[in-house]
Amino acid sequence: MAQSHAEREMAVKARTASRALQALRSEDRVAILNRIAESLEQHEQHIMAENALDVEAAGGGKVSDALLQRLILKPSKIQQLADGIRAIAKQEEPIGRLLSRLEVAEGLVLDKVTSPIGVLLVIFEARPDALPQIASLAIRSGNGLLLKGGKEAMRSNALLHRLIVDAVAEVAPGVGRDVIGLVTRRDEIDGLLKLNDVIDLVIPRGSNELVSYIQNNTRIPVLGHADGICHIYVDAAANLQQATAICIDSKVDYPAACNAVEKILVHDSLQGQPLESLVKALQDAGVSVHGGERTVAALGLPAAPSVRHEYSSMDVTVELVSGMDEAIEHIHANGSGHTECILTDDQAAADDFLRRVDSACVFHNASTRFSDGYRFGLGAEVGISTARIHARGPVGVEGLLTTRYLMRGKGQTVEKDKAVTYTHKALPLS
Amino acid sequence: MAQSHAEREMAVKARTASRALQALRSEDRVAILNRIAESLEQHEQHIMAENALDVEAAGGGKVSDALLQRLILKPSKIQQLADGIRAIAKQEEPIGRLLSRLEVAEGLVLDKVTSPIGVLLVIFEARPDALPQIASLAIRSGNGLLLKGGKEAMRSNALLHRLIVDAVAEVAPGVGRDVIGLVTRRDEIDGLLKLNDVIDLVIPRGSNELVSYIQNNTRIPVLGHADGICHIYVDAAANLQQATAICIDSKVDYPAACNAVEKILVHDSLQGQPLESLVKALQDAGVSVHGGERTVAALGLPAAPSVRHEYSSMDVTVELVSGMDEAIEHIHANGSGHTECILTDDQAAADDFLRRVDSACVFHNASTRFSDGYRFGLGAEVGISTARIHARGPVGVEGLLTTRYLMRGKGQTVEKDKAVTYTHKALPLS
Repeated sequence: MAQSHAEREMAVKARTASRALQALRSEDRVAILNRIAESLEQHEQHIMAENALDVEAAGGGKVSDALLQRLILKPSKIQQLADGIRAIAKQEEPIGRLLSRLEVAEGLVLDKVTSPIGVLLVIFEARPDALPQIASLAIRSGNGLLLKGGKEAMRSNALLHRLIVDAVAEVAPGVGRDVIGLVTRRDEIDGLLKLNDVIDLVIPRGSNELVSYIQNNTRIPVLGHADGICHIYVDAAANLQQATAICIDSKVDYPAACNAVEKILVHDSLQGQPLESLVKALQDAGVSVHGGERTVAALGLPAAPSVRHEYSSMDVTVELVSGMDEAIEHIHANGSGHTECILTDDQAAADDFLRRVDSACVFHNASTRFSDGYRFGLGAEVGISTARIHARGPVGVEGLLTTRYLMRGKGQTVEKDKAVTYTHKALPLS
Repeated sequence: MAQSHAEREMAVKARTASRALQALRSEDRVAILNRIAESLEQHEQHIMAENALDVEAAGGGKVSDALLQRLILKPSKIQQLADGIRAIAKQEEPIGRLLSRLEVAEGLVLDKVTSPIGVLLVIFEARPDALPQIASLAIRSGNGLLLKGGKEAMRSNALLHRLIVDAVAEVAPGVGRDVIGLVTRRDEIDGLLKLNDVIDLVIPRGSNELVSYIQNNTRIPVLGHADGICHIYVDAAANLQQATAICIDSKVDYPAACNAVEKILVHDSLQGQPLESLVKALQDAGVSVHGGERTVAALGLPAAPSVRHEYSSMDVTVELVSGMDEAIEHIHANGSGHTECILTDDQAAADDFLRRVDSACVFHNASTRFSDGYRFGLGAEVGISTARIHARGPVGVEGLLTTRYLMRGKGQTVEKDKAVTYTHKALPLS
């Protein structure tokens, strides 16, 4: 009970401080970011020392080698972080951007402008370099932030957090240190996930298990995705050489990524040599090819574990379908709404697929691996959302913003809609 | 258990049918709407007869007079409904609207387009005329729909629903009747509210109690607001005559509306004659004026029930504040984030208020009653949202839409970002 009270207080303080942050002039938020970048550079030795303690504690096989690699900071990485924060500082001011302007009636003008969301809860795993990145995005967009990092990076995170809130307090004492709270214990997360009246958005960055756990244990909207079960449909009119290259890239470029292909649906007419060539090319590229019901029978492939399976490894399922309709039905029944792709030289078929497939990203003749915030030109990537409201697909800073309506009048009243004459005329934005 | 299974089946069928609906050509969705309008006109006598049975059953004081009035359909209302549906049919196609276009690399183009959300659950109270309106908005925007109306309008709703799904099945047999499900029992709602994997958005239209209940009993995102605790801040530099007119209109134009003012914060410097005139003018307009701590002491006003109170009646609280900072703090601490207004002739003060107040709608010198979808020029109003994600403030059809990314390539692969040169060049939208 006392525990839950402490978490509420932390969230409420972050909201209050976030309002002071949004009330700053743009140049003051920029100054905070530049001070953070400078402070990271100045404290490089100290950061390295704390990080070394984290790395030492995680050594001796206590964590996987991949996790250990992600945990390690290097001077070059700290410089990259500082440069990245200065790049965020240089971006166009995201708050108060005019989205639409309408003359409601003579002398009564309605603006729709971008606005910070409020308080974000971001949960991330081992990488300590995620902390300054997320904090900088939150500050740039005027949001309060509660952060929970991986316990392996405890000391690194504590120092990075302290340097950041010190910089906030120094440049903007009216905002203060509470605008970014650091959560250190796992059990505090459960308390925070209950605060749907104070926290506006949860962003889990980590394993599918983490995301699923969050999604199943909170009423706060969650930005992210638990599954990335991406499909490629190889149409009858596919250019087979190109299709083969795209299928291989979509898997082998980064097999553990959420945008890697997990299932390739092949048109019936490609049975025989074309299908066998595709399977062989995948195998030659090091991919273990599994079969659906029909390809197990036709090609003797080993059966896939299930009709809906995310391998996240150098494995893929290949199955035959009777055509576009069956492919789309299969995707809707077994996909996760992340990214799907059609490979074809038939423009009408491509248009049909792009129109009908109900996924965040739908591609024609391009690798599923393009489904990514950086490749989509969003600058920083906050996450990839398979939710259908607020933000869908790769999400950049705009996912940390909402809108407000601002109306400027000259004393107008409504009086049963008889006091003004509605004109509802769109006005130019500049 | 069997019960919950039936509800899931209903929702899954609505999702499948919604995908067929979105796959139609625009003119086919328009044809469905025109057929619905025609059918309502053709069945006017039948609708009136079923409605009369509802009205009869609700008579004899079983329901409030206000509810009874909302329950009654008249031939003129049915004609209005048909006309409204034809107007929705004439609107610009909402699906597939191009929001942005980016050249990712040479020959690789990324479009962001509008897209239906999926399956909506709309819960509304007594008014049966809401059913065809909501159904038409859902069809226009390509969404599946589950509807729960008030039990008083049971017979009217059943017939209206039947006419609508008959029209869908007639014009688009591939979509079929399942695209709009009618829920008739209250206990089914609890089952549906659990289906956060199949239902994408809940829109409760009704009392604050209904909305609060929904918000507290589902993980599905809810579009709406439980409270409308709107504030007006009368600044030192207010034009008092104009301020008085706006304060009166903001309350008396429709005291039960969510956008009616509940609390008027008055700058200290207006103590004495200006404040007393404002209070007297409100009282002369029939408003019961309550006081906060300071106005109870200064003017002997009866004390307000609490510092945060939604009257929804011809009552208002008037309180003194020391200035803008206290007014904004008061609003953030006690408001519901719906609509707040500053009355002042000081442009800098107005700009400051509009920049700092964290509410869906922030006004300068205009009645809070303007906070409304029709007055905001949105056409049909889906609801007013005080949530901070997806849609905020008055919401039109765009609240029933999400986005998809469509990427068109020529065979591009990623290959560790070495296979293409990213250009990230914005392209014109037409």
